[in-house]
Amino acid sequence: MDHGVTAATWLTLATMILAAKLGGEGALRLGQPAVLGELLAGVVLGSLPFAAVDAFNHEAQGTAIAFAAELGVMLLLFQVGLESSVRQMVNVAPRAGVVALLGVVAPTILGYGTSRALLPAAPSSLHLFVGATLCATSVGVTASVLKDAGVLGASEANIILGAAVIDDVLGLIMLAVVSAIAVSGAPDVAMIARISGVAVAFVVGSLAVGLWVMRGVSHVAARLRAPHVLGAVSIAFCLVLAGVSDQSGLAAIVGAYVAGLLLDDVRLKPFGSGGLKQVEEFAAPIVAVFAPVFFVRTGMNVKLTGFNGSTILLTLALVVAAFVGKLACGLGVRGAKVDRLTVGFGMVPRGEVGLIFADAGQKLVIGGEPLFPPGVYASLVAAVFVTTVVAPPALAARLGRLK
Amino acid sequence: MDHGVTAATWLTLATMILAAKLGGEGALRLGQPAVLGELLAGVVLGSLPFAAVDAFNHEAQGTAIAFAAELGVMLLLFQVGLESSVRQMVNVAPRAGVVALLGVVAPTILGYGTSRALLPAAPSSLHLFVGATLCATSVGVTASVLKDAGVLGASEANIILGAAVIDDVLGLIMLAVVSAIAVSGAPDVAMIARISGVAVAFVVGSLAVGLWVMRGVSHVAARLRAPHVLGAVSIAFCLVLAGVSDQSGLAAIVGAYVAGLLLDDVRLKPFGSGGLKQVEEFAAPIVAVFAPVFFVRTGMNVKLTGFNGSTILLTLALVVAAFVGKLACGLGVRGAKVDRLTVGFGMVPRGEVGLIFADAGQKLVIGGEPLFPPGVYASLVAAVFVTTVVAPPALAARLGRLK
Repeated sequence: MDHGVTAATWLTLATMILAAKLGGEGALRLGQPAVLGELLAGVVLGSLPFAAVDAFNHEAQGTAIAFAAELGVMLLLFQVGLESSVRQMVNVAPRAGVVALLGVVAPTILGYGTSRALLPAAPSSLHLFVGATLCATSVGVTASVLKDAGVLGASEANIILGAAVIDDVLGLIMLAVVSAIAVSGAPDVAMIARISGVAVAFVVGSLAVGLWVMRGVSHVAARLRAPHVLGAVSIAFCLVLAGVSDQSGLAAIVGAYVAGLLLDDVRLKPFGSGGLKQVEEFAAPIVAVFAPVFFVRTGMNVKLTGFNGSTILLTLALVVAAFVGKLACGLGVRGAKVDRLTVGFGMVPRGEVGLIFADAGQKLVIGGEPLFPPGVYASLVAAVFVTTVVAPPALAARLGRLK
Repeated sequence: MDHGVTAATWLTLATMILAAKLGGEGALRLGQPAVLGELLAGVVLGSLPFAAVDAFNHEAQGTAIAFAAELGVMLLLFQVGLESSVRQMVNVAPRAGVVALLGVVAPTILGYGTSRALLPAAPSSLHLFVGATLCATSVGVTASVLKDAGVLGASEANIILGAAVIDDVLGLIMLAVVSAIAVSGAPDVAMIARISGVAVAFVVGSLAVGLWVMRGVSHVAARLRAPHVLGAVSIAFCLVLAGVSDQSGLAAIVGAYVAGLLLDDVRLKPFGSGGLKQVEEFAAPIVAVFAPVFFVRTGMNVKLTGFNGSTILLTLALVVAAFVGKLACGLGVRGAKVDRLTVGFGMVPRGEVGLIFADAGQKLVIGGEPLFPPGVYASLVAAVFVTTVVAPPALAARLGRLK
């Protein structure tokens, strides 16, 4: 996957940024969220069959562009975290926990049932894998819509973001469980306990330690004279938590989001009352350049090929299961003032997380045979794609009605 | 060189950013340019012998960090280019051309002579290579000092930057000539003509075409509604010219600098009078995060090992040749108002360009024998290092005196 850093890297990056801005522009003009246009721009770029574009697609899979894309979505979540605080997240935690739990259970059952009904000959471990893929949540897509709509900080937004973090922990456990069942027929309880322990310890530990460490860092940093020191130190803090999160088995973006939550006016007090705003303004251009690269790249990774009658039927059934499963989890929200449908739509996109799950399943070989029968992978990817591009306009429309 | 994008990538990047800020802070407190501290922070990080740091050094050599570093120095040169204009560069072009030419001829002759005097047994192609290494100029280091000193736009700054661009073209030709002589005993005239033609065509062509294209791009972009569109499009424009420049055989930073020159109030007119300022503010945080990564990484690439009496003597002689050669080129500046020593000090740092030259030479094998006798590579790297860290304080002191 590595081609080093060459002229092709710079040209590919430029093309992805321009394509994202053009796609985003098209979506905005149609009254849709920019992220929808960015994803579709990626699908178009990824599907162009010309030879020159092949080299370009090849480069986009390389380490340099992967780095740019992941840095972009990471800083997007950091930016989103800045808009909220640890206190707000603790307040919504019980409600977010219920949403996350329902958002894992409901799609898994529906996915399992759909797969079993349409692929009766396949082993039950396949059905489990299909179910697990449907319980993924791509928080980047939703975060982008919520940010552009200016509703970060609202209860719905905090519940979705909190649920997405918990969902990442649950999804990690889920993937371990279904992989173990598929390979050995039974879940490995010790491994699952370890994975869960490390993941939960990261989230709780980084919140506790981070609150304490960042106060000290802040006091030291405020005395430095180097230009842009607050911004650079904040980004480094985000990268450290992202790295530790990644190392714990969680997504790097979970750490970045937690870092954003931890940075608030209390922690940044040594920098005066404008500290938080300064960090936000510092992160904004980096996010504006790199986050669209992530969405374009996600779109490029969707290869919609190899369809026939039965796979189209499976795809449609999976799409219905995917939507119903996540909309159902919105119903789990308690409290009169919260719009349940907003929360549900916010949990719908599977994005890159769904693609990673589907990819993990496709690679499993059980007793010399691939776990996935032909066509199932294509259907899963297509279903993931539909949830990812339909959710942003649905969420934006719902948010527009609430205003 | 590839390790993909992992937890280690984020932690390494965070460490490099923090080390750069601490090193920069130390330098600033001692009244020195920040870039000196960043380079030294890199040398310290690169020399720490612990096992954990080994993994870290390994990651820093990977594609992801290379990308971050090169993007950083590229956007630094873009930012520096924004402070100047094509018209200003055309005005200083004749003077910059003389400086660049003297800055190639003088160090080559001095390097050749030094090498010949101290290594009488070595072939003359080695002496040529040593001379060629000394004619490199690392414009990133100088640009950083000039920017922090707030003198971009002054005649001295424009002459140095213009000369550095011309120097890159001449250095490229020089490297091709001495490599061809070392390998086949004679320069390959057709190849040299081709290299020179492509390089010169890039600089002249991109200036001509860029002036015309950017006006159109600007008119279209000004009508887009997507947020941060001007910033993102400008960065993409910089990346395109950097990619084309890289493809032409020149350094990517030359293209980035030309892109910065091309963006001025005339070209950005559709965005209103604040367009240029908007681009500057957009690029600043990206440069603040990534450019220090470049300087730390340059410092890490300097491995100061394997010295004895004779290599120390050779190093000292090369350092003297390197300084005298570039200070001499400052004398070539005509015009009463220009400080010749400032221009000379600005051309002194060899930085990563010198390291690339030394590396290319070290890899050459002539008739089964390496071209470089033992110790010569270490001496060249040490001499490059000394020019790179001594020049910033010298330049800053000289600029301080002029104010």
